[in-house]
Amino acid sequence: METERPSALVFDVFGTVVDWRSSLIGELTEFGRRSGLDVDWAGLVDAWRAAYKPSMDRVRRGEQTWTPLDDLHRASLDRLLEERGLAGLAESDKRWINLGWHRLKPWPDSVPGITRLKQRYIVGPLSNGNVALLVDMARHSALPWDVVFGADLFRRYKPDPETYLGVARLLRLAPAQVMLVAAHNEDLAAARALGLKTGFVPRATEYGPLQKKDFAADQPWDVVARDMEHLAELMGA
Amino acid sequence: METERPSALVFDVFGTVVDWRSSLIGELTEFGRRSGLDVDWAGLVDAWRAAYKPSMDRVRRGEQTWTPLDDLHRASLDRLLEERGLAGLAESDKRWINLGWHRLKPWPDSVPGITRLKQRYIVGPLSNGNVALLVDMARHSALPWDVVFGADLFRRYKPDPETYLGVARLLRLAPAQVMLVAAHNEDLAAARALGLKTGFVPRATEYGPLQKKDFAADQPWDVVARDMEHLAELMGA
Repeated sequence: METERPSALVFDVFGTVVDWRSSLIGELTEFGRRSGLDVDWAGLVDAWRAAYKPSMDRVRRGEQTWTPLDDLHRASLDRLLEERGLAGLAESDKRWINLGWHRLKPWPDSVPGITRLKQRYIVGPLSNGNVALLVDMARHSALPWDVVFGADLFRRYKPDPETYLGVARLLRLAPAQVMLVAAHNEDLAAARALGLKTGFVPRATEYGPLQKKDFAADQPWDVVARDMEHLAELMGA
Repeated sequence: METERPSALVFDVFGTVVDWRSSLIGELTEFGRRSGLDVDWAGLVDAWRAAYKPSMDRVRRGEQTWTPLDDLHRASLDRLLEERGLAGLAESDKRWINLGWHRLKPWPDSVPGITRLKQRYIVGPLSNGNVALLVDMARHSALPWDVVFGADLFRRYKPDPETYLGVARLLRLAPAQVMLVAAHNEDLAAARALGLKTGFVPRATEYGPLQKKDFAADQPWDVVARDMEHLAELMGA
């Protein structure tokens, strides 16, 4: 980095830090085997993720009052199960499936890379996930966060400015002292527009065969790394 | 504990987890030596702490708009320095003195006890300190928090109910699934009145020779421990 170093690095989580698609497909395939259910679980997971952005956008546009991601996930899941004739699953199973987002597994480089970065920088998630989800995930996978920024702290979803600027305010830093790390160019563009620094890490298999974008940086972000360990190296950590 | 165990333990910080008085007196005495200043630093620290509750109460009563603790501390410090003829200190020195609250040292049992408790429970501070202060303190002293609840998340100071209930809401737990751990009977009374569980740890030297209360539990709190390691033992962690 040629510019002044930030004091804090905050990380997009779904896709950037954790591999939601493989984690959920793996858990659900195993669940289907145990339960004797013949379901296209990959298709269900892809449809579930496809419902993610539209469900947040309804909140962002004010068509729905503030609703934490756990509840948006559950509403989408219920609809998708119903469409597949699975509405009769036990409530405890539905709740367990929905909490799969709390148990997502990190990409292999995430924990070692973030652990290195923590030696030098404040590290935390800045996620559309809610605090409870992010805390459970961190405990489940030993993500070494210093602080947890979930969307429910701000009652806003990214890319609303209140999220990025809320982090700077709570850390009592200028926006330029905070770097967003993400695998998504759009997230970084929103952060850069507000004065944050930006770090890109590609996750070319996030969406599996459905991936259409974010194979590479589409702007000259402040840092472009191969993965989180490479990011630590580039950031001098 | 005879009742159902909580899922999360949140800790009062100043006095309960860290020894603010010895930390600040130690730092300031050393600063005075370096700077050739002959000042009653213990008196200054005690007066600074005495200003703490009244300054928050002005915010709690709505006489002052929301102001994070770092700024309340700074305003009190400026007044106290002025009274002692020290208003001419360099701005960088004043800032460093004020950030002493970010560098407070834990009682010797705090880190080992909380580290044990973290194996079984979600752990975090619930403090009138702001998030930046608590994050700096945790990094400085290796406090192993899972999540950081500072008063600025709620824009309310304890004992306002929004703080205790805000933690339960963000963790998506019922109040009874959250335990407040504190060395202050009044803090625990406020938490219990809202349905939280309560754990008392005495800190009989918190105020040094000025300590007048909180030598022991004055109600039958859910757990009463000698220190944080004993608390971990009593909580089965």
